[in-house]
Amino acid sequence: MRTAFHHQLDALRRSIADMCDLTGTAMAQATEALLGADIVLAEGVISAHPDVIVRATDIENDAYTLLLLQAPVAGDLRAILASLQNVADVYRMAALALHVADTVRLRHPCTAIPDDIKPYFAEMGRIAVDLSRNARRVVLSGNAEQAAELAHDDDAMNELHRLVFTILMDRKWSHSVPAAVDSTLLSRYYERFADHAVKVGQRIIFQATGSHGGQPQLERHHTA
Amino acid sequence: MRTAFHHQLDALRRSIADMCDLTGTAMAQATEALLGADIVLAEGVISAHPDVIVRATDIENDAYTLLLLQAPVAGDLRAILASLQNVADVYRMAALALHVADTVRLRHPCTAIPDDIKPYFAEMGRIAVDLSRNARRVVLSGNAEQAAELAHDDDAMNELHRLVFTILMDRKWSHSVPAAVDSTLLSRYYERFADHAVKVGQRIIFQATGSHGGQPQLERHHTA
Repeated sequence: MRTAFHHQLDALRRSIADMCDLTGTAMAQATEALLGADIVLAEGVISAHPDVIVRATDIENDAYTLLLLQAPVAGDLRAILASLQNVADVYRMAALALHVADTVRLRHPCTAIPDDIKPYFAEMGRIAVDLSRNARRVVLSGNAEQAAELAHDDDAMNELHRLVFTILMDRKWSHSVPAAVDSTLLSRYYERFADHAVKVGQRIIFQATGSHGGQPQLERHHTA
Repeated sequence: MRTAFHHQLDALRRSIADMCDLTGTAMAQATEALLGADIVLAEGVISAHPDVIVRATDIENDAYTLLLLQAPVAGDLRAILASLQNVADVYRMAALALHVADTVRLRHPCTAIPDDIKPYFAEMGRIAVDLSRNARRVVLSGNAEQAAELAHDDDAMNELHRLVFTILMDRKWSHSVPAAVDSTLLSRYYERFADHAVKVGQRIIFQATGSHGGQPQLERHHTA
Protein backbone atom coordinates (compact mmCIF):
# COMPACT_ATOMS: atom_id res chain seq x y z
CA MET A 1 0.00 0.00 0.00
CA ARG A 2 1.29 3.46 -0.90
CA THR A 3 0.95 5.73 2.08
CA ALA A 4 0.96 9.52 2.13
CA PHE A 5 4.54 9.18 3.36
CA HIS A 6 5.55 7.28 0.23
CA HIS A 7 3.92 9.84 -2.02
CA GLN A 8 5.91 12.53 -0.24
CA LEU A 9 9.09 10.49 -0.62
CA ASP A 10 8.38 10.13 -4.34
CA ALA A 11 7.86 13.88 -4.61
CA LEU A 12 11.22 14.37 -2.89
CA ARG A 13 12.92 12.09 -5.42
CA ARG A 14 11.28 13.87 -8.33
CA SER A 15 12.53 17.19 -6.99
CA ILE A 16 16.07 15.78 -6.77
CA ALA A 17 15.71 14.43 -10.32
CA ASP A 18 14.69 17.93 -11.45
CA MET A 19 17.81 19.29 -9.79
CA CYS A 20 19.89 16.74 -11.73
CA ASP A 21 18.31 18.13 -14.91
CA LEU A 22 19.17 21.70 -13.98
CA THR A 23 22.69 20.66 -13.05
CA GLY A 24 23.23 18.84 -16.33
CA THR A 25 21.96 21.87 -18.24
CA ALA A 26 24.22 24.16 -16.22
CA MET A 27 27.27 21.99 -16.95
CA ALA A 28 26.37 21.73 -20.66
CA GLN A 29 26.07 25.50 -20.94
CA ALA A 30 29.15 26.17 -18.81
CA THR A 31 31.19 23.83 -21.02
CA GLU A 32 29.91 25.47 -24.20
CA ALA A 33 30.70 28.87 -22.67
CA LEU A 34 34.21 27.65 -21.79
CA LEU A 35 34.92 26.32 -25.27
CA GLY A 36 33.63 29.45 -27.02
CA ALA A 37 34.50 32.10 -24.40
CA ASP A 38 30.77 32.84 -24.51
CA ILE A 39 29.96 35.36 -21.80
CA VAL A 40 26.20 35.26 -22.43
CA LEU A 41 26.03 31.52 -21.82
CA ALA A 42 28.30 31.82 -18.77
CA GLU A 43 26.11 34.53 -17.29
CA GLY A 44 23.06 32.39 -17.97
CA VAL A 45 24.54 29.66 -15.76
CA ILE A 46 25.46 32.19 -13.08
CA SER A 47 22.04 33.83 -13.01
CA ALA A 48 20.28 30.45 -12.90
CA HIS A 49 22.20 29.33 -9.81
CA PRO A 50 20.13 31.09 -7.13
CA ASP A 51 17.16 28.99 -8.23
CA VAL A 52 19.26 25.83 -7.64
CA ILE A 53 20.06 27.05 -4.12
CA VAL A 54 16.39 27.66 -3.37
CA ARG A 55 15.39 24.26 -4.71
CA ALA A 56 18.10 22.45 -2.76
CA THR A 57 17.13 24.25 0.44
CA ASP A 58 13.45 23.44 -0.13
CA ILE A 59 14.23 19.77 -0.70
CA GLU A 60 16.34 19.65 2.47
CA ASN A 61 13.60 21.29 4.48
CA ASP A 62 10.99 18.91 3.08
CA ALA A 63 13.19 15.93 3.91
CA TYR A 64 13.73 17.17 7.47
CA THR A 65 10.01 17.77 7.90
CA LEU A 66 9.24 14.26 6.70
CA LEU A 67 11.83 12.83 9.07
CA LEU A 68 10.70 14.78 12.10
CA LEU A 69 6.95 14.48 11.60
CA GLN A 70 6.69 10.96 10.24
CA ALA A 71 9.55 9.34 12.17
CA PRO A 72 10.05 6.66 9.50
CA VAL A 73 11.94 3.47 10.33
CA ALA A 74 14.13 0.95 8.51
CA GLY A 75 13.97 1.22 4.72
CA ASP A 76 11.93 4.42 4.72
CA LEU A 77 14.41 6.08 7.06
CA ARG A 78 17.30 4.99 4.85
CA ALA A 79 15.49 6.35 1.80
CA ILE A 80 15.09 9.81 3.31
CA LEU A 81 18.67 9.88 4.56
CA ALA A 82 19.82 8.95 1.07
CA SER A 83 17.69 11.77 -0.38
CA LEU A 84 19.25 14.26 2.04
CA GLN A 85 22.73 13.17 1.02
CA ASN A 86 21.85 13.05 -2.68
CA VAL A 87 20.58 16.60 -2.70
CA ALA A 88 23.84 17.75 -1.11
CA ASP A 89 25.85 15.98 -3.83
CA VAL A 90 23.71 17.28 -6.69
CA TYR A 91 23.92 20.77 -5.22
CA ARG A 92 27.70 20.46 -5.13
CA MET A 93 27.68 19.38 -8.79
CA ALA A 94 25.71 22.53 -9.64
CA ALA A 95 28.24 24.60 -7.66
CA LEU A 96 31.08 23.08 -9.71
CA ALA A 97 29.27 23.94 -12.97
CA LEU A 98 28.98 27.46 -11.57
CA HIS A 99 32.75 27.52 -10.91
CA VAL A 100 33.33 26.74 -14.60
CA ALA A 101 31.00 29.58 -15.63
CA ASP A 102 32.66 31.95 -13.13
CA THR A 103 36.05 31.19 -14.65
CA VAL A 104 34.72 31.95 -18.15
CA ARG A 105 33.38 35.29 -16.95
CA LEU A 106 36.60 36.11 -15.13
CA ARG A 107 38.72 35.56 -18.26
CA HIS A 108 36.33 37.09 -20.80
CA PRO A 109 37.01 38.21 -23.56
CA CYS A 110 39.97 35.78 -23.47
CA THR A 111 39.44 32.04 -23.40
CA ALA A 112 40.42 30.39 -20.13
CA ILE A 113 41.93 27.33 -21.82
CA PRO A 114 44.20 27.03 -24.89
CA ASP A 115 42.69 25.70 -28.12
CA ASP A 116 44.75 22.52 -28.19
CA ILE A 117 43.30 21.13 -24.95
CA LYS A 118 39.72 22.16 -25.71
CA PRO A 119 38.82 18.73 -27.11
CA TYR A 120 39.55 17.16 -23.72
CA PHE A 121 37.30 19.65 -21.97
CA ALA A 122 34.59 19.10 -24.57
CA GLU A 123 34.73 15.41 -23.75
CA MET A 124 34.78 16.03 -19.98
CA GLY A 125 31.71 18.23 -20.43
CA ARG A 126 29.95 15.54 -22.44
CA ILE A 127 30.66 12.93 -19.75
CA ALA A 128 29.53 15.32 -16.99
CA VAL A 129 26.20 15.89 -18.73
CA ASP A 130 25.85 12.14 -19.21
CA LEU A 131 26.51 11.62 -15.49
CA SER A 132 23.80 14.14 -14.58
CA ARG A 133 21.36 12.33 -16.83
CA ASN A 134 22.24 8.95 -15.31
CA ALA A 135 22.09 10.32 -11.79
CA ARG A 136 18.58 11.58 -12.57
CA ARG A 137 17.60 8.18 -13.90
CA VAL A 138 18.83 6.22 -10.88
CA VAL A 139 17.37 8.67 -8.36
CA LEU A 140 13.98 7.93 -9.95
CA SER A 141 14.40 4.20 -10.62
CA GLY A 142 16.46 3.17 -7.59
CA ASN A 143 18.02 0.61 -9.95
CA ALA A 144 21.37 -0.68 -8.68
CA GLU A 145 22.58 -1.88 -12.10
CA GLN A 146 21.99 1.51 -13.68
CA ALA A 147 23.69 3.09 -10.68
CA ALA A 148 26.78 0.95 -11.24
CA GLU A 149 27.10 2.46 -14.74
CA LEU A 150 27.90 5.83 -13.19
CA ALA A 151 31.27 4.42 -12.12
CA HIS A 152 32.19 3.71 -15.77
CA ASP A 153 31.67 7.33 -16.74
CA ASP A 154 33.69 8.34 -13.70
CA ASP A 155 36.58 6.15 -14.85
CA ALA A 156 36.48 7.87 -18.24
CA MET A 157 36.48 11.27 -16.52
CA ASN A 158 39.46 10.35 -14.33
CA GLU A 159 41.34 9.18 -17.41
CA LEU A 160 40.77 12.56 -19.11
CA HIS A 161 41.73 14.42 -15.94
CA ARG A 162 45.02 12.52 -15.83
CA LEU A 163 45.58 13.19 -19.52
CA VAL A 164 45.11 16.95 -19.08
CA PHE A 165 47.62 16.82 -16.22
CA THR A 166 50.15 14.97 -18.30
CA ILE A 167 49.85 17.71 -20.93
CA LEU A 168 50.15 20.51 -18.35
CA MET A 169 53.18 18.89 -16.75
CA ASP A 170 54.92 18.33 -20.09
CA ARG A 171 57.88 20.52 -21.00
CA LYS A 172 56.26 21.02 -24.39
CA TRP A 173 53.46 23.10 -22.80
CA SER A 174 53.79 26.30 -24.79
CA HIS A 175 51.08 28.36 -23.13
CA SER A 176 51.18 30.74 -20.19
CA VAL A 177 51.28 29.87 -16.51
CA PRO A 178 47.84 31.47 -15.92
CA ALA A 179 46.41 29.25 -18.66
CA ALA A 180 47.92 26.23 -16.90
CA VAL A 181 46.49 27.34 -13.55
CA ASP A 182 43.01 27.81 -15.01
CA SER A 183 43.19 24.48 -16.85
CA THR A 184 44.29 22.73 -13.64
CA LEU A 185 41.34 23.99 -11.63
CA LEU A 186 38.81 23.52 -14.42
CA SER A 187 39.90 19.92 -14.91
CA ARG A 188 39.57 19.40 -11.17
CA TYR A 189 36.02 20.81 -11.23
CA TYR A 190 34.95 18.28 -13.86
CA GLU A 191 36.63 15.45 -12.00
CA ARG A 192 34.92 16.38 -8.71
CA PHE A 193 31.58 16.73 -10.53
CA ALA A 194 31.92 13.09 -11.58
CA ASP A 195 32.89 12.00 -8.05
CA HIS A 196 29.67 13.45 -6.64
CA ALA A 197 27.55 11.74 -9.30
CA VAL A 198 29.24 8.46 -8.36
CA LYS A 199 28.34 9.03 -4.71
CA VAL A 200 24.67 9.30 -5.69
CA GLY A 201 25.04 6.00 -7.51
CA GLN A 202 26.77 4.31 -4.57
CA ARG A 203 23.96 5.37 -2.29
CA ILE A 204 21.34 3.93 -4.63
CA ILE A 205 23.29 0.65 -4.69
CA PHE A 206 23.40 0.69 -0.89
CA GLN A 207 19.66 1.23 -0.69
CA ALA A 208 18.87 -1.44 -3.27
CA THR A 209 21.22 -4.12 -2.00
CA GLY A 210 21.83 -3.16 1.62
CA SER A 211 25.52 -3.51 0.88
CA HIS A 212 27.85 -0.74 1.90
CA GLY A 213 30.38 -1.99 -0.61
CA GLY A 214 32.96 -0.94 1.95
CA GLN A 215 32.10 2.74 2.29
CA PRO A 216 28.72 4.15 1.39
CA GLN A 217 29.15 7.86 1.98
CA LEU A 218 32.91 8.02 1.99
CA GLU A 219 34.49 8.78 -1.29
CA ARG A 220 36.90 6.65 -3.15
CA HIS A 221 40.33 8.11 -2.98
CA HIS A 222 41.68 9.92 -6.01
CA THR A 223 44.69 12.04 -6.39
CA ALA A 224 44.97 14.56 -9.14
CA MET B 1 17.83 11.87 32.38
CA ARG B 2 20.67 10.38 30.34
CA THR B 3 19.49 7.29 28.53
CA ALA B 4 21.59 4.55 26.97
CA PHE B 5 20.86 6.27 23.69
CA HIS B 6 22.47 9.49 24.87
CA HIS B 7 25.54 7.65 26.07
CA GLN B 8 25.84 6.06 22.64
CA LEU B 9 25.41 9.47 21.02
CA ASP B 10 28.17 10.86 23.24
CA ALA B 11 30.43 7.97 22.24
CA LEU B 12 29.71 8.78 18.60
CA ARG B 13 30.71 12.41 19.15
CA ARG B 14 33.90 11.40 20.93
CA SER B 15 34.80 9.15 18.02
CA ILE B 16 34.27 12.05 15.61
CA ALA B 17 36.38 14.27 17.87
CA ASP B 18 39.14 11.65 17.73
CA MET B 19 38.91 11.73 13.94
CA CYS B 20 39.33 15.52 14.07
CA ASP B 21 42.53 14.94 16.06
CA LEU B 22 43.87 12.46 13.53
CA THR B 23 42.94 14.80 10.69
CA GLY B 24 44.70 17.76 12.30
CA THR B 25 47.80 15.63 12.88
CA ALA B 26 47.70 14.42 9.28
CA MET B 27 47.45 17.99 7.97
CA ALA B 28 50.23 19.19 10.30
CA GLN B 29 52.54 16.41 9.10
CA ALA B 30 51.54 16.79 5.45
CA THR B 31 52.31 20.51 5.61
CA GLU B 32 55.67 19.91 7.27
CA ALA B 33 56.41 17.28 4.63
CA LEU B 34 55.44 19.77 1.90
CA LEU B 35 57.65 22.54 3.26
CA GLY B 36 60.67 20.27 3.74
CA ALA B 37 60.10 17.77 0.89
CA ASP B 38 60.15 15.20 3.69
CA ILE B 39 59.25 11.81 2.23
CA VAL B 40 59.23 10.04 5.60
CA LEU B 41 56.62 12.40 7.03
CA ALA B 42 54.57 12.20 3.81
CA GLU B 43 54.60 8.42 3.90
CA GLY B 44 53.58 8.54 7.55
CA VAL B 45 50.42 10.43 6.56
CA ILE B 46 49.76 8.03 3.71
CA SER B 47 50.21 4.90 5.82
CA ALA B 48 47.99 6.32 8.61
CA HIS B 49 45.07 6.95 6.23
CA PRO B 50 43.60 3.42 6.14
CA ASP B 51 42.97 3.72 9.89
CA VAL B 52 40.99 6.92 9.22
CA ILE B 53 38.87 5.08 6.65
CA VAL B 54 38.17 2.25 9.11
CA ARG B 55 37.24 4.70 11.86
CA ALA B 56 34.96 6.72 9.61
CA THR B 57 33.24 3.58 8.37
CA ASP B 58 32.79 2.33 11.95
CA ILE B 59 31.29 5.66 13.04
CA GLU B 60 28.90 5.63 10.09
CA ASN B 61 27.84 2.09 10.86
CA ASP B 62 27.32 2.93 14.53
CA ALA B 63 25.25 5.97 13.61
CA TYR B 64 23.10 3.93 11.22
CA THR B 65 22.61 1.24 13.86
CA LEU B 66 21.54 3.85 16.42
CA LEU B 67 19.12 5.35 13.92
CA LEU B 68 17.58 2.08 12.84
CA LEU B 69 17.35 0.41 16.24
CA GLN B 70 16.48 3.36 18.44
CA ALA B 71 14.33 5.33 15.99
CA PRO B 72 15.09 8.65 17.72
CA VAL B 73 12.86 11.66 17.13
CA ALA B 74 13.21 15.45 17.12
CA GLY B 75 16.46 16.72 18.65
CA ASP B 76 17.99 13.26 19.00
CA LEU B 77 17.30 12.50 15.37
CA ARG B 78 18.86 15.80 14.33
CA ALA B 79 21.91 15.05 16.48
CA ILE B 80 22.53 11.72 14.79
CA LEU B 81 22.00 13.16 11.33
CA ALA B 82 24.50 15.89 12.16
CA SER B 83 26.98 13.25 13.33
CA LEU B 84 26.59 11.34 10.08
CA GLN B 85 27.24 14.50 8.06
CA ASN B 86 30.09 15.60 10.34
CA VAL B 87 31.94 12.33 9.92
CA ALA B 88 31.68 12.67 6.14
CA ASP B 89 33.16 16.18 6.32
CA VAL B 90 35.97 15.21 8.68
CA TYR B 91 36.73 12.21 6.49
CA ARG B 92 36.96 14.52 3.48
CA MET B 93 39.36 16.78 5.40
CA ALA B 94 41.57 13.75 6.07
CA ALA B 95 41.43 12.85 2.37
CA LEU B 96 42.60 16.38 1.49
CA ALA B 97 45.53 16.08 3.92
CA LEU B 98 46.31 12.81 2.16
CA HIS B 99 46.27 14.60 -1.22
CA VAL B 100 48.92 17.00 0.11
CA ALA B 101 51.08 14.06 1.27
CA ASP B 102 50.55 12.25 -2.06
CA THR B 103 51.79 15.32 -3.92
CA VAL B 104 54.92 15.47 -1.74
CA ARG B 105 55.64 11.81 -2.47
CA LEU B 106 55.00 12.27 -6.20
CA ARG B 107 57.52 15.13 -6.47
CA HIS B 108 60.16 13.74 -4.11
CA PRO B 109 63.12 14.43 -4.00
CA CYS B 110 62.07 17.80 -5.48
CA THR B 111 59.86 20.18 -3.55
CA ALA B 112 56.36 20.58 -4.99
CA ILE B 113 56.24 24.33 -4.30
CA PRO B 114 58.86 27.06 -4.80
CA ASP B 115 60.57 28.48 -1.72
CA ASP B 116 59.12 31.96 -2.09
CA ILE B 117 55.52 30.83 -1.64
CA LYS B 118 56.26 28.40 1.19
CA PRO B 119 55.38 30.95 3.90
CA TYR B 120 51.81 31.10 2.56
CA PHE B 121 51.50 27.34 2.69
CA ALA B 122 52.99 27.27 6.19
CA GLU B 123 50.26 29.67 7.24
CA MET B 124 47.53 27.73 5.45
CA GLY B 125 48.75 24.60 7.24
CA ARG B 126 48.66 26.38 10.58
CA ILE B 127 45.09 27.56 9.99
CA ALA B 128 44.04 24.08 8.84
CA VAL B 129 45.37 22.52 12.04
CA ASP B 130 43.62 25.23 14.05
CA LEU B 131 40.37 24.46 12.22
CA SER B 132 40.69 20.75 13.05
CA ARG B 133 41.23 21.60 16.70
CA ASN B 134 38.21 23.91 16.74
CA ALA B 135 36.06 21.41 14.89
CA ARG B 136 36.98 18.85 17.57
CA ARG B 137 36.04 21.30 20.29
CA VAL B 138 32.63 22.18 18.88
CA VAL B 139 31.76 18.57 18.06
CA LEU B 140 32.21 17.85 21.78
CA SER B 141 30.73 21.05 23.22
CA GLY B 142 27.93 21.73 20.74
CA ASN B 143 28.63 25.39 21.46
CA ALA B 144 27.28 27.68 18.73
CA GLU B 145 29.55 30.61 19.59
CA GLN B 146 32.67 28.49 19.34
CA ALA B 147 31.31 27.07 16.09
CA ALA B 148 30.94 30.55 14.65
CA GLU B 149 34.69 31.09 15.17
CA LEU B 150 35.41 28.47 12.52
CA ALA B 151 34.16 30.93 9.91
CA HIS B 152 36.86 33.46 10.91
CA ASP B 153 39.62 30.94 10.24
CA ASP B 154 37.93 30.10 6.96
CA ASP B 155 38.01 33.77 5.96
CA ALA B 156 41.75 33.84 6.68
CA MET B 157 42.24 30.70 4.61
CA ASN B 158 40.29 32.14 1.67
CA GLU B 159 42.40 35.27 1.83
CA LEU B 160 45.60 33.22 1.61
CA HIS B 161 44.17 31.12 -1.21
CA ARG B 162 43.40 34.28 -3.18
CA LEU B 163 46.88 35.62 -2.43
CA VAL B 164 48.55 32.47 -3.76
CA PHE B 165 46.44 32.81 -6.89
CA THR B 166 47.44 36.39 -7.39
CA ILE B 167 51.09 35.32 -7.21
CA LEU B 168 50.56 32.42 -9.63
CA MET B 169 48.73 34.63 -12.10
CA ASP B 170 51.36 37.36 -11.98
CA ARG B 171 53.70 37.79 -14.94
CA LYS B 172 56.54 37.95 -12.45
CA TRP B 173 56.07 34.23 -11.62
CA SER B 174 59.53 32.90 -12.42
CA HIS B 175 59.00 29.23 -11.71
CA SER B 176 57.93 26.37 -13.94
CA VAL B 177 54.44 25.54 -15.14
CA PRO B 178 54.44 22.22 -13.20
CA ALA B 179 55.26 24.15 -10.01
CA ALA B 180 52.31 26.45 -10.75
CA VAL B 181 50.01 23.48 -11.37
CA ASP B 182 51.03 21.80 -8.10
CA SER B 183 50.71 25.05 -6.16
CA THR B 184 47.24 25.61 -7.62
CA LEU B 185 45.94 22.23 -6.53
CA LEU B 186 47.66 22.31 -3.15
CA SER B 187 46.17 25.71 -2.38
CA ARG B 188 42.78 24.38 -3.40
CA TYR B 189 43.17 21.40 -1.03
CA TYR B 190 43.78 23.71 1.93
CA GLU B 191 40.88 25.92 0.97
CA ARG B 192 38.50 22.96 0.67
CA PHE B 193 39.78 21.59 4.00
CA ALA B 194 38.63 24.82 5.62
CA ASP B 195 35.26 24.70 3.85
CA HIS B 196 34.53 21.29 5.33
CA ALA B 197 35.48 22.43 8.83
CA VAL B 198 33.08 25.35 8.41
CA LYS B 199 30.31 22.94 7.45
CA VAL B 200 30.81 21.10 10.75
CA GLY B 201 30.51 24.43 12.53
CA GLN B 202 27.36 25.42 10.62
CA ARG B 203 25.74 22.15 11.57
CA ILE B 204 26.54 22.69 15.26
CA ILE B 205 25.00 26.17 15.03
CA PHE B 206 21.92 24.67 13.39
CA GLN B 207 21.59 22.10 16.15
CA ALA B 208 22.12 24.63 18.93
CA THR B 209 19.89 27.37 17.60
CA GLY B 210 17.52 25.54 15.24
CA SER B 211 18.41 28.17 12.67
CA HIS B 212 19.44 27.09 9.21
CA GLY B 213 21.16 30.43 8.73
CA GLY B 214 20.02 30.13 5.14
CA GLN B 215 21.56 26.79 4.20
CA PRO B 216 22.69 24.23 6.74
CA GLN B 217 24.23 21.52 4.60
CA LEU B 218 24.76 23.51 1.46
CA GLU B 219 28.08 25.18 1.16
CA ARG B 220 28.72 28.81 0.81
CA HIS B 221 29.82 29.65 -2.66
CA HIS B 222 33.47 30.30 -3.30
CA THR B 223 35.32 30.67 -6.48
CA ALA B 224 39.03 30.10 -6.70
